[in-house]
Amino acid sequence: MSRVSNFCRTHVLIQIMPQYNLNKLSTRAPKDFEKETTKSETEKIVDELNELQNLLYAEGKHSILVVLQGLDASGKDGVVRKIFGRMNPQGVDVVSFKVPTEEEASHDFLWRIHKNTPPKGRIMIFNRSQYEDILVTRVHGWCDDKLAEKRMECINDFEKLLIEHNNTHILKFYLHVSAEEQQERLNERTTDPTKMWKYNKRDFTEAKLRDKYYAMYEDCFKNCNKPEWIIVPADQNWYKEHLIAKALRDSLVSLNMQYPVLP
Amino acid sequence: MSRVSNFCRTHVLIQIMPQYNLNKLSTRAPKDFEKETTKSETEKIVDELNELQNLLYAEGKHSILVVLQGLDASGKDGVVRKIFGRMNPQGVDVVSFKVPTEEEASHDFLWRIHKNTPPKGRIMIFNRSQYEDILVTRVHGWCDDKLAEKRMECINDFEKLLIEHNNTHILKFYLHVSAEEQQERLNERTTDPTKMWKYNKRDFTEAKLRDKYYAMYEDCFKNCNKPEWIIVPADQNWYKEHLIAKALRDSLVSLNMQYPVLP
Repeated sequence: MSRVSNFCRTHVLIQIMPQYNLNKLSTRAPKDFEKETTKSETEKIVDELNELQNLLYAEGKHSILVVLQGLDASGKDGVVRKIFGRMNPQGVDVVSFKVPTEEEASHDFLWRIHKNTPPKGRIMIFNRSQYEDILVTRVHGWCDDKLAEKRMECINDFEKLLIEHNNTHILKFYLHVSAEEQQERLNERTTDPTKMWKYNKRDFTEAKLRDKYYAMYEDCFKNCNKPEWIIVPADQNWYKEHLIAKALRDSLVSLNMQYPVLP
Repeated sequence: MSRVSNFCRTHVLIQIMPQYNLNKLSTRAPKDFEKETTKSETEKIVDELNELQNLLYAEGKHSILVVLQGLDASGKDGVVRKIFGRMNPQGVDVVSFKVPTEEEASHDFLWRIHKNTPPKGRIMIFNRSQYEDILVTRVHGWCDDKLAEKRMECINDFEKLLIEHNNTHILKFYLHVSAEEQQERLNERTTDPTKMWKYNKRDFTEAKLRDKYYAMYEDCFKNCNKPEWIIVPADQNWYKEHLIAKALRDSLVSLNMQYPVLP
């Protein structure tokens, strides 16, 4: 999408590579980024975002869909809290896609997704998304390559529908966390009383499947790349938040929105 | 769809033409159809249908989507009542798509449609459908040719999703009523006290746009023909009901459904 390409031309911070080789992509901030300066910049961007979200709501012409993907403990929940937590909840919604319910499973895989797409004027955050149907399912062999290919085609058609027929601007973020940082965060869930509620034994076994997940993610980046995925180094929360806030701000600014005048 | 093709091979009653020229297609039963015999055959088929619907529900592997389209007073409501009215309501739903609500209009045009697609084991009847967005809208110039083309592509992708990813069997019926019969039925709405509730002044002006509607329907049949449209002569309710019941019965039979056995 031209929106994303524009973003890339002017903001080289985010790594969008022609080939998405996750093993070669850094999970950390470049050396010239200083934590405290970056954090205070992010603060300013978050304030801007709140204004922009109000404008989006007031104008009511566009909608924003933010897709958050990443391995367990890559920090998806943190993004929701830190970037969107101060926005007006009247215009922002989050939906977390977990194991499909019985009702969801009795429909096609995009049914529950489509139902939750944002109306004009609003921001919707997908904490996990339609992509799980070609990620966790492939890693565990519940979806073979042939079916995955068909599903990816459906996902592309579906995103095109949203973009072309509802002015939806889709931002797809992959939070790229290293094995070491992931392990540390998972361990914290066994020791930190404020994090124990997130503990899930399964996360530890899933973490061992990193290589398989990488292969499936790379295939997904290659085949579902309109709009392009934004790979976010996610070992340091302050850097991850900075990049996402910036991407979102630039995307909203590019819409050239206007407050409606009196009729 | 092979299902429909099979149907056509064995049942030449229904007119599916390579070119859908509505002006040349009859709106009445062929001469060798006798009303009372046909009606009693339809009765038997409707009984069969009730059994088949129970099997569909019990097996829970397939779903059926019936799309009913046609000009005003072509008899869509009658089909719902006569063919589906004796089925178990636990497995059959109907949704009538009218002018989009504010919420519906703030999403892409397929949002309200997708939300209402049938889960496995159930029959859903669309009384008007996604097709209105390339019919009434085109006739009145709210949707130009270019947008219509894009929408038709979206509809095709969407139907493919349902067919391939949820075992949905789609039966699309166009109820073909003549100008004379339509006028008579509309007039009845001004004189018959049991039909006055259906009176709508707009229907009379819409009826004058028949040629425009035909052109848009023909374009739709040509471009959205997977599964193929079934053109149903609809001047005589007994014949219309017979054809639809038969098409539905044959479609359900072709699924080779089985009652699940004990685990």
